[in-house]
Amino acid sequence: MDTLTRLEATIARRRSASPEQSYVAQLRARGLPVIARKLGEEAVEAVIAALSGTREELTGEAADLLFHLLVLLQEKDIPLADVLAELDQREGVSGIDEKASRGA
Amino acid sequence: MDTLTRLEATIARRRSASPEQSYVAQLRARGLPVIARKLGEEAVEAVIAALSGTREELTGEAADLLFHLLVLLQEKDIPLADVLAELDQREGVSGIDEKASRGA
Amino acid sequence: MDTLTRLEATIARRRSASPEQSYVAQLRARGLPVIARKLGEEAVEAVIAALSGTREELTGEAADLLFHLLVLLQEKDIPLADVLAELDQREGVSGIDEKASRGA
Amino acid sequence: MDTLTRLEATIARRRSASPEQSYVAQLRARGLPVIARKLGEEAVEAVIAALSGTREELTGEAADLLFHLLVLLQEKDIPLADVLAELDQREGVSGIDEKASRGA
Repeated sequence: MDTLTRLEATIARRRSASPEQSYVAQLRARGLPVIARKLGEEAVEAVIAALSGTREELTGEAADLLFHLLVLLQEKDIPLADVLAELDQREGVSGIDEKASRGA
Repeated sequence: MDTLTRLEATIARRRSASPEQSYVAQLRARGLPVIARKLGEEAVEAVIAALSGTREELTGEAADLLFHLLVLLQEKDIPLADVLAELDQREGVSGIDEKASRGA
Repeated sequence: MDTLTRLEATIARRRSASPEQSYVAQLRARGLPVIARKLGEEAVEAVIAALSGTREELTGEAADLLFHLLVLLQEKDIPLADVLAELDQREGVSGIDEKASRGA
Repeated sequence: MDTLTRLEATIARRRSASPEQSYVAQLRARGLPVIARKLGEEAVEAVIAALSGTREELTGEAADLLFHLLVLLQEKDIPLADVLAELDQREGVSGIDEKASRGA
């Protein structure tokens, strides 16, 4: 099983742990606005690392961002597979002009 | 091959396309600050969608965020595999207390 | 009258204009999530300008940020004066240790 | 003297204090990327408060955002007056169609 799918399963298991023992359970106990805030903050940190940090720092921030994205998706009951399916579908559509379908 | 790995390869191919034909090439031509800005903006949109959008909207924003994260990583020559390895390593460490090692 | 107070009054007048004629009216018509998104995006642009732009660019982004903050406050019926009063109060408190009262 | 101008002067004085005694001095010692990160994080918190917090919370987050914007401007040697002059100029231009000159 690949890393993100396994991590998604791990996060699902930890949601029901006690907040004292699990960071995921702690986030969940604090609620959706806090989880969304963490995603936003990790993105800010990734932006900063990209512009003024090392490659190691950006690697770490990207990992933090992916982790918190998975927590947020789970909080909204969205399987990672749905997000990946969306990406697959866009890529299929984008043979000739990827930009048009994205509306960038 | 899984979705993100395939998308990473697609992005790598498109970097050398003409900016008129490829959104990835266009982003690359505009430079790192614009790519980083796009990542930040997509994260803001994901936060908004999580708090006041539909599940479909958040699914789409999460896909946008992943796409632009891959573009940013590639701009900094960081393989997605390095980010996934970082996540794997954290998960191995976090058997007892995931939070301690992350410093949340 | 100082700039921000006058701008706040201008924004208040324009809220009732037609969206075709006024950017403020347009933002208002699109709703709170769009206004909040604009604030987030302007902050991302200010961060990018601070790290990799010119002083002129940061000046412009700071102006954009202040403008959209005023629009957001007005959408939530919060007078700028309340925000300034909060800043005044913190500064009064912070004689000895500003950090403690802010919780940094 | 109005609140923001006075706060700007206070921040200028504190920049040369010891990091142990002053949050401003501490931020300055940590450097521009950390100051920019704080601005980004405060904006995320303002977005969250606008969408799912109370008016009091948004008032507090707006104050935090203004405070850190002043710290960031000072770190880049940009007087608040320059940002306000930019806003004044835009407003003068925008008599008929504010949107055109801003490029929304």
